[in-house]
Amino acid sequence: MTPTLQLSIDLLRLPSITPDNSNCLQLIADYLDKLGFECEFMHFGDPSDTGKNAQVNNLYAKKRGSNPTAPHLCFAGHTDVVPVGDESLWTYPPFSATIADGKLWGRGAADMKTAIACFVVACEQFIAKNPNHKGDISLLITADEEGVAINGTHKVVQALAQRGEQMNYCLVGEPSSTNTLGDVIKNGRRGSLNAKLTVTGKQGHIAYPHLAINPMHALAPALAELVATAWDTGNEYFPATSMQISNINSGTGATNVIAQDAQVLFNFRYCTENTADSLKAKTHEIFDKHFNNSKASYQIDWSLSGEPFLTKKGQFVDAVVSAIKQVTGTTAQLSTSGGTSDGRFIAPIMNAEVVELGVKNATIHQIDECVAIDDLENLTKIYEQILSQLIA
Amino acid sequence: MTPTLQLSIDLLRLPSITPDNSNCLQLIADYLDKLGFECEFMHFGDPSDTGKNAQVNNLYAKKRGSNPTAPHLCFAGHTDVVPVGDESLWTYPPFSATIADGKLWGRGAADMKTAIACFVVACEQFIAKNPNHKGDISLLITADEEGVAINGTHKVVQALAQRGEQMNYCLVGEPSSTNTLGDVIKNGRRGSLNAKLTVTGKQGHIAYPHLAINPMHALAPALAELVATAWDTGNEYFPATSMQISNINSGTGATNVIAQDAQVLFNFRYCTENTADSLKAKTHEIFDKHFNNSKASYQIDWSLSGEPFLTKKGQFVDAVVSAIKQVTGTTAQLSTSGGTSDGRFIAPIMNAEVVELGVKNATIHQIDECVAIDDLENLTKIYEQILSQLIA
Repeated sequence: MTPTLQLSIDLLRLPSITPDNSNCLQLIADYLDKLGFECEFMHFGDPSDTGKNAQVNNLYAKKRGSNPTAPHLCFAGHTDVVPVGDESLWTYPPFSATIADGKLWGRGAADMKTAIACFVVACEQFIAKNPNHKGDISLLITADEEGVAINGTHKVVQALAQRGEQMNYCLVGEPSSTNTLGDVIKNGRRGSLNAKLTVTGKQGHIAYPHLAINPMHALAPALAELVATAWDTGNEYFPATSMQISNINSGTGATNVIAQDAQVLFNFRYCTENTADSLKAKTHEIFDKHFNNSKASYQIDWSLSGEPFLTKKGQFVDAVVSAIKQVTGTTAQLSTSGGTSDGRFIAPIMNAEVVELGVKNATIHQIDECVAIDDLENLTKIYEQILSQLIA
Repeated sequence: MTPTLQLSIDLLRLPSITPDNSNCLQLIADYLDKLGFECEFMHFGDPSDTGKNAQVNNLYAKKRGSNPTAPHLCFAGHTDVVPVGDESLWTYPPFSATIADGKLWGRGAADMKTAIACFVVACEQFIAKNPNHKGDISLLITADEEGVAINGTHKVVQALAQRGEQMNYCLVGEPSSTNTLGDVIKNGRRGSLNAKLTVTGKQGHIAYPHLAINPMHALAPALAELVATAWDTGNEYFPATSMQISNINSGTGATNVIAQDAQVLFNFRYCTENTADSLKAKTHEIFDKHFNNSKASYQIDWSLSGEPFLTKKGQFVDAVVSAIKQVTGTTAQLSTSGGTSDGRFIAPIMNAEVVELGVKNATIHQIDECVAIDDLENLTKIYEQILSQLIA
C-alpha cells in the first residue's frame, strides 16, 4: 500500500457529496500540517442558509520556499463529489474504496479525490528531497466545485487576491486524460456569457397591425444578423467564438393576437480573441442598428459565467508536458475544449498560469467510477517532477 | 309601436346565446310564412355533440318572384348573440329589451337581431306594394355566427349550392355603421390564412454546437425575410396584405441546451391581389431558399380561415348607396376593413355579390348594447328601397 493509494482510500471512504466535505479537508490538513504547511480553513456563505448561499468550507495550505522571488506553484482541486445515483447498480459500494482488477473503485476515484492524494504525496516526496525548495507550494482545496460553486474557489481566490497573495502557476487536478494518463492537458477554457433579451412592443389584434407593435417583427432581422455574425476565427489555442440561441418565447397562444413582448436567451462560448465586453458591444451594435428605427424597444440582461483563460506555451506548459513525457513516455496534447472549471476563477483573479492535468475522465459522474492504481502512482511522480522543474 | 320595433323586442327577449337559437328562428319563420315565404329549417352537426360539432339550426326562407330570370336578393344574418358578461353591470337587464332615451337596450340590439327585424318588415312592406315582384327574395338566418361557425352559414350555402340554388345579391345585416346610420358599408373583407410552422433541428449541449443543429439559427434568416416581404400593395378596395407572427416558442428553459425544434404561428390578412395559394407558394419559396442548405428542416401546416371577397362598384353597391342617400341623406363610404363575417362563405360558394349594411357598431359585444329606435325605422326603409331598386 503506497501513501497515495492509502490517502486515496481514506478520502474515498468519506461520503462528501457536494457541498458536504465530510471531514475530507481536515484529513488533508492533518497530513499537510506534518509536512510544514500552514493550513487555513476559509468558510464562506451563511451557516443558516440551506440554499445557494449555504456555508462552504475550503482549505488553503501553504509552505513557503527559501527564495521569496522564486515562483509560487499552487495545486487546486475539490473534495466534493456528485451524488451516486442508484447505489444498487454499483459493482462495489460507492464509498467502499474497493481495490479490484488493478483499479480503485468509488465515487470521486477519478473526479477528483485521488488527484488530491497525488498532490499531497508528491509534495511530501518533493519536500523530502528538497527541504530548502526555493518557491512556495500551496494547495487550494474546495468542497464546492460540483455544486453552485459560489462559496468555493471563487471566494477563496478573491480573499487571497485581496490580501496580496500572489500565485505564478496553478495546476488543477481535474481528470483531463482521455485514453492514457497525461495524453491531454487543458491549458485554457472558453468563456461563457449569457444574454437574456426582452423585446417590448404593443399588444393588439392581428387584423389591425397598424395599431400594434409586433415585437417579433422588430426582432427577426436583428436575430438573423446575430446568427450570421462571425465573432472571430479563433486562434492557435481556441476554436472560433460560438453564439447559440437556447430559448425564444413570444405570444399569447391565440392566433389572432400580436404579442406585447418576446424573450430570447442566448449564450456565447468565446475564446481569447474576444472579451465579455467586446461581445456585449458588438451585440448592442447589431440591436441598436435594427431597433433605432423601430417602435419596439429591447433590453439585454447580461450574466457572465466565466471569462476565458489561456496558458500559452511557455515554462509552465513545458514543465507539465516534459514531466508527463518523462514518467509515462506520452506526448501530451494541449486542449481548451469542454465546459468550465474552477480555472475560470483562478486564472483571472490570481493572474496565474493555469493548467489542468488529472487522471482519465472516462467514468466520471458515472456508476462504477474508478481509476487505475498504476495511474495514481504515475500521476504522483508527474506532479513531483513538475515541482522539481519549477520551484526546486 | 312599429312592426320593426315590436319584432325587435320579441327577438331580444329570447336569450339566444350562441349557438342556442331560443326559438328565434321559429318566431321569424312564423312571420315570414304569413308573407308567403317557404321556410326551411336546416340542421347541421351532431345532436349528441356538445363541442365544435354541436347541432346548429338554420333558417332558409324564400319567396319566389314572377320572373325566373330576374335577380335573387338574399338577406343574411344571425340570431345568436355573445354572452352578456357580468349582468349586474347592465343598466337594464340584457334580455329585457327596455326602451329608454330613444334607444332599445339589450344583448343583440346592434349585433344583430334588430337588423333581422328590419329585413322581415322591409320584405312585408315591399311585398305589400309589389305583390308581383319579379325577383326572388330570401332570408338566410343562422344561429351560429358568433361561435365556431362550423354548422351555420357555411354549411347552409354549401347545401344550397349543391342543389343548384343561385343567388345574385346578398345583403348581410352586420352592424357596419360607425357614426351615423349608413355612413359605412362593407363591400368586401380580407382573407385570413393561418400557418403553423415547425422547424426541426437536433438537440445538444450549447458548448458543442457542431454536434447539434440549432433550429432557431436556421429559422432566423427565413423569418427576417418573411417579415421584410411586401406581399402586394393592395388595390382600390383593399389595403396591402399583412403578415403577422403571433407566437414563437423554442427551448427547454435551460441556458445550456440547444433545442430540438421551434414552433411559429403566423397569419396573413390578405386582399384580392393574392390568394391563399399564392401566399403559400411565396412563403415556401422563402423557406425553401433558406432551408435548402440547412441541416434543419421545416414544415408548415396551413389553415384557411376565409378567402377574401370583394363586391366592386356596380348595380348592387349603387342600389345600397342610393337607398341610404335617399332615406338618410348620408353618402356611404365603402370599406373592406375589420375582421371576418359570414360573407366569407356566401361570396365564394354562392358566387354572389355581398354587401354588409347594418346599424351602428359602437356598443356591440359590450355591456349596455343598444340601438337608436329611429335607426331601426330608417334601416327598414333602406332595405325596402334596395328591394324596390333591384327586384321590383
